[in-house]
Amino acid sequence: MAEEIYSPGLEGVVAGETAISTLAGGLSYRGYSIEDLADRACFEEVAYLILHGELPNYGELAAFRERLAANAKIPDAVVDVIRRVPPAAPVMDVLRSGASLLAHWDDEVHDNSRAANLRKAERLLAQLPLVMATAHRDGPEKLLSPRPELSFAGNVLWLLTGREPSPRQVKAMDVSLVMYAEHEYNASTFAARVVCSTLSDLHSSVTAAIGALKGPLHGGANERVLEVLQAVGSPDRAEAWIRDALARKVRIMGFGHRVYKTGDVRAKYLKPLCAALATETGHEDMERTADVIERIVTHEKNLPPNLDWPSARIYHYLGLPVQLYTPLFVISRITGWSAHVIEQLENNRLIRPRSRYIGPAARSFVPLENR
Amino acid sequence: MAEEIYSPGLEGVVAGETAISTLAGGLSYRGYSIEDLADRACFEEVAYLILHGELPNYGELAAFRERLAANAKIPDAVVDVIRRVPPAAPVMDVLRSGASLLAHWDDEVHDNSRAANLRKAERLLAQLPLVMATAHRDGPEKLLSPRPELSFAGNVLWLLTGREPSPRQVKAMDVSLVMYAEHEYNASTFAARVVCSTLSDLHSSVTAAIGALKGPLHGGANERVLEVLQAVGSPDRAEAWIRDALARKVRIMGFGHRVYKTGDVRAKYLKPLCAALATETGHEDMERTADVIERIVTHEKNLPPNLDWPSARIYHYLGLPVQLYTPLFVISRITGWSAHVIEQLENNRLIRPRSRYIGPAARSFVPLENR
Repeated sequence: MAEEIYSPGLEGVVAGETAISTLAGGLSYRGYSIEDLADRACFEEVAYLILHGELPNYGELAAFRERLAANAKIPDAVVDVIRRVPPAAPVMDVLRSGASLLAHWDDEVHDNSRAANLRKAERLLAQLPLVMATAHRDGPEKLLSPRPELSFAGNVLWLLTGREPSPRQVKAMDVSLVMYAEHEYNASTFAARVVCSTLSDLHSSVTAAIGALKGPLHGGANERVLEVLQAVGSPDRAEAWIRDALARKVRIMGFGHRVYKTGDVRAKYLKPLCAALATETGHEDMERTADVIERIVTHEKNLPPNLDWPSARIYHYLGLPVQLYTPLFVISRITGWSAHVIEQLENNRLIRPRSRYIGPAARSFVPLENR
Repeated sequence: MAEEIYSPGLEGVVAGETAISTLAGGLSYRGYSIEDLADRACFEEVAYLILHGELPNYGELAAFRERLAANAKIPDAVVDVIRRVPPAAPVMDVLRSGASLLAHWDDEVHDNSRAANLRKAERLLAQLPLVMATAHRDGPEKLLSPRPELSFAGNVLWLLTGREPSPRQVKAMDVSLVMYAEHEYNASTFAARVVCSTLSDLHSSVTAAIGALKGPLHGGANERVLEVLQAVGSPDRAEAWIRDALARKVRIMGFGHRVYKTGDVRAKYLKPLCAALATETGHEDMERTADVIERIVTHEKNLPPNLDWPSARIYHYLGLPVQLYTPLFVISRITGWSAHVIEQLENNRLIRPRSRYIGPAARSFVPLENR
């Protein structure tokens, strides 16, 4: 073994290879820039690209959509336990339980071949929106069935709201899902890779990733973004509020990123789309509030906005409650997580670092009667 | 950022600090050698030591036992869904779901203070044996209640078998739990630390760790050990079997360790205890088979046995079925995982490495109609 490297947080450590995405020169999935994908492909095409490595042709896309529609169901026992979960439980926590429970009814759960893992990934992609909707909508009469004529993004809005979404609403949801789908070795993806590096399984890895994503230093940040905007209340209060928060050294969610130092390409892309949706839905005040905060945080702290900053507003303008924002991240990122699990297993090495001991020196045992 | 370090698997990378255990000079928990703890302390004392940092006195130990007894219950909704899980689902998978589900009924799930996390850890320590027993024993009439007069190890045997264990059986279970309780930055513990480094929660971290532990390159190995011993069948067939397996480059589970290069102190400690239990329970044949395999693998491959090698036999001699071996690891390691989560949160830094991109170079988007 070579000399040991000390890196808490693993900053500056390259923990492995990936062919799925890179942040070099902006973000790209499998070689396609995120801007091109958001402009010209729908989420289903991007999900297929991430999982299978290439963009689908008409036939492949149609077959993929048919598989998603066929797998859009969850076992009664899972529905029943979700309904019995106390209402205070966040939808994110229920999604974590749902991903774990679905394994018990998946016949291929312990087949770690590439083909089986692709099938399991597609099943979870079809099932997790239903777990989210079941956890969100209380009472059996409110549960809706997916509509095969709607796109993935359209179905998500339909299942959550029970309303027919407008084309602009569907496009906004679709683009946000495209943006959230994959991001190399972020903390939740890395958790998934650590789990499957023991030759565990896809469901265990995804369950771990959901648990990691919920933290406010990761996916949970998009829920905190809206709390800030709602606390500020109106554009005329924004400057005083944010200058006071910065003076008190409050961490402002939605700004800065461990990896992007000069700005998150996804935030830049979503900004005009977010503004147009605000106008359509009558949320100009919040958008102006966000502009003031963004200008001051970027200028004063040199922290540009990250993806969560516009995404949270988009979800708010779509009429979705805050506790669904991180779950929406899950139902998109399931594609990236699954692709990383498959990639890890094809060239596996157990992920097992060392630690530096800072505890008590060796000490003599003291029997119970002498303590 | 300094120059990047490339280390797939993180070998040679120190990912953080810990005061919980060290492998320097053998294994010790909080400064006490594993041999002293196994000889002179019971599992409850060791669990308290790992969680709270010091060995308990009489009063602290009695109060700890009372808290465990008071928390030894799981919600009806969790029992019901476990009973509806298809029988083919491994107990390990059900434990993962159980850890996730229990969060929904834990009022402190989102309180990440040290005090709250210690209480949650103690609750999971009391609850997970019941999840394991519920998953293992099918049919409501067979479910047993914990008996407050039995020790933790005694209760585990009682809940799984419905039989009053002998003192030697209780001691063997107790020592195996002591040995499995903690082991610095192993893969499951590291998964737990990655998850909570996003400021997620203890239940999410433990759920991830269970998913990591089930892999055959980690905790799942103890189930594979017994499969080998049963495949060999008898001592006179052992030498031919193992020489053939080695010639075919079959990986023999229970031997070798990423970190211990000259032998696992825990395997050395358990060897005589395992032999005595074999004699008491009439398993001398399997013990002689194991001796032959151990001698040849150690000599031919220079791979000494690890903890799983004697542990699997101990569980077999205790009359426990193979699919409980890794779950038994869980109900002990919950102590180490929880202590690491608490430690990570007290000096947190997001664990987020980088990756090396090996995918397609930037490519132009091709619209669906041209694919």
